[in-house]
Amino acid sequence: MEFTVSYASFTTAVSDINKIISSKSVIPILSGIKIEANEYGLKLTGSNSDIFIERTIPLLKSGEKVVDIKEFGSVVVLSKYLNGIVKKLPNDICIKLGRNDSITIKSGDIETKLNGFNANDYPKLPEMDRNTKIEIPFGKLTEAIKQTAFAVSKSEAKPVLTGVKMEFEENKLICTATDSHRLARREVTIESKTTESFVVPSTSLSELTHLKEADSSIVEISYTNNFIVFGTAMSSLYSRLIEGVYPNTGSLVPTESKALITMNTQVLIEGMDRACVFSTEWKHNNIQLEIVDDATIKISSNSTEVGMIEELQKIIHIEGQNDIQMSFDGRFVLDALKRIPEENVTIRFDGLMKPIVIQPQNDSTCLHLISPVRSY
Amino acid sequence: MEFTVSYASFTTAVSDINKIISSKSVIPILSGIKIEANEYGLKLTGSNSDIFIERTIPLLKSGEKVVDIKEFGSVVVLSKYLNGIVKKLPNDICIKLGRNDSITIKSGDIETKLNGFNANDYPKLPEMDRNTKIEIPFGKLTEAIKQTAFAVSKSEAKPVLTGVKMEFEENKLICTATDSHRLARREVTIESKTTESFVVPSTSLSELTHLKEADSSIVEISYTNNFIVFGTAMSSLYSRLIEGVYPNTGSLVPTESKALITMNTQVLIEGMDRACVFSTEWKHNNIQLEIVDDATIKISSNSTEVGMIEELQKIIHIEGQNDIQMSFDGRFVLDALKRIPEENVTIRFDGLMKPIVIQPQNDSTCLHLISPVRSY
Repeated sequence: MEFTVSYASFTTAVSDINKIISSKSVIPILSGIKIEANEYGLKLTGSNSDIFIERTIPLLKSGEKVVDIKEFGSVVVLSKYLNGIVKKLPNDICIKLGRNDSITIKSGDIETKLNGFNANDYPKLPEMDRNTKIEIPFGKLTEAIKQTAFAVSKSEAKPVLTGVKMEFEENKLICTATDSHRLARREVTIESKTTESFVVPSTSLSELTHLKEADSSIVEISYTNNFIVFGTAMSSLYSRLIEGVYPNTGSLVPTESKALITMNTQVLIEGMDRACVFSTEWKHNNIQLEIVDDATIKISSNSTEVGMIEELQKIIHIEGQNDIQMSFDGRFVLDALKRIPEENVTIRFDGLMKPIVIQPQNDSTCLHLISPVRSY
Repeated sequence: MEFTVSYASFTTAVSDINKIISSKSVIPILSGIKIEANEYGLKLTGSNSDIFIERTIPLLKSGEKVVDIKEFGSVVVLSKYLNGIVKKLPNDICIKLGRNDSITIKSGDIETKLNGFNANDYPKLPEMDRNTKIEIPFGKLTEAIKQTAFAVSKSEAKPVLTGVKMEFEENKLICTATDSHRLARREVTIESKTTESFVVPSTSLSELTHLKEADSSIVEISYTNNFIVFGTAMSSLYSRLIEGVYPNTGSLVPTESKALITMNTQVLIEGMDRACVFSTEWKHNNIQLEIVDDATIKISSNSTEVGMIEELQKIIHIEGQNDIQMSFDGRFVLDALKRIPEENVTIRFDGLMKPIVIQPQNDSTCLHLISPVRSY
């Protein structure tokens, strides 16, 4: 293997992949980046326990030559040192495979030698049936992920709840996440005939949202029994799937409500944020929401230890009862509100100890369900 | 106590002081900010174990009223919550002391109550003899600190080495720091007749450099047996002094040299930085400096585990021997070089196992001494 690559293309790709690699992997070769020089350019692969990322540096970019390959081949080198060195080099980088899987990296007057691993020992990526693929614009996909993935369970007690359920129905993708105290759901319209359902680790989806792709670029989703692949023009992200039966959440959403209020999203966020200042004081970040009358809600929080905070906010519109008082985990309410870009939100109350439903006004594709906490 | 204060003045002051306060102080009242309303305005005081910072918000700023005091008084409230709340308030802040040392904070429609402590229980600050003061421009003082404080010992084994020695002689301040493997010294000219010497914790000096003061503003230094105070127009920083006999470092600096080379500072920094990429591999971040001939040095580092890096750099000027080869802790060399803003540096070699001296070219007020490490 021998090639010369432009400084910018190589350092960007190495640095992006390095971010997901743990330098403390129990399998030493997984602390490495696999570099492969072939007829299409360079392919770099890195992994953590959940995902593999494959990134291609093509021979040409916008007509300019960025990779010049003298000899095909592949090797795995420790990502930490490769990344540490290449970003400090002065200009274009020439890499040559030597004896015992070591590589020589040359740039200007600087010569570095890094020990490596035999590329044949690197785990094989699962073979995907690229025919069964689903296409979705990157921006739509990542928006649905961001609006739901925050609500997954942080505990490993029920592994299936640490993932986002992605249900593909005809022309529809529904993302659902819940930690059994709250639930976030988002529906997006896509062009697809596939009916499939996966539970994808939220950590993998978070890496996916970090890929630097244009919102309009198309992501191709393909899958096997255990793996799902999100492919864009330059990168492929392979994630394992979570096995297990995802709970049936459809029946949780209340169909009726005792009260429905419409509030300004931003004003409500600011008020909840203030009420959450004492939040480290409780296990459940306890804050109280009270419909005072037809025009006013009160947001309050108090702790005998620290003090109390209280404010009144205007209700834009109200239907139903005007005397409801309930306690919630303030962080959960804030998490949901912050994912709603619309100007106004509606909150539906179904009665004491029943979850509330938060939605953008006039938009049923996005839904947040939050269970109340008992207030003492 | 009752006052109204402008949002910007109060939140900035509280946030600045909050940065030094530990919310886990074993003495609960030290997790608080002391607020004092008097005839001059507001005085806020906060502390960690090493320092106290006092900050004044005057009644007027550039002719504008920023504080309106209705009733004098003082109280201590938990800094974490005070800071958490005030920055989220919509506008000017009205604070009133209530029963049991609790305060009410009002801003717009928001009302918060924070429990507090009796201000009389807050530790008294040491009384300073403000007549024995030394004056020095803020910029000069912080430059000398930044060029030396990084070299203090990180270990508590010899507490006196965790501080910077500040020696005031007639019209001169000499700052010295050493961890016994390296030494940094900087001399600045000041107008002063005082002859005094203190060892100040580097952590206190680091907080001092973070004060937002103009370089030309005057810092007044006063002291007692155990405390030193750095006072500016708006802030006073009280630090304890470190007791103990500081080692006599004057005799350590070699007076002769076997070789003296002049190098471009930035180019050398970049080369050392690359050679340090493998630095986590060794206890002593071992890098080798070799004078190859009259025009060239070689910087190299190698590890059987990881690989090696090597580069040649041009010597601008050389005096003495042209065949020296020594090993150093690369981080120490980098630390020193990065504090030298001048274009060129000189490095003096005194022979194998003797420390090298790094100085800006043509400037003897700044000096770095670095001991070699044995190379195996």
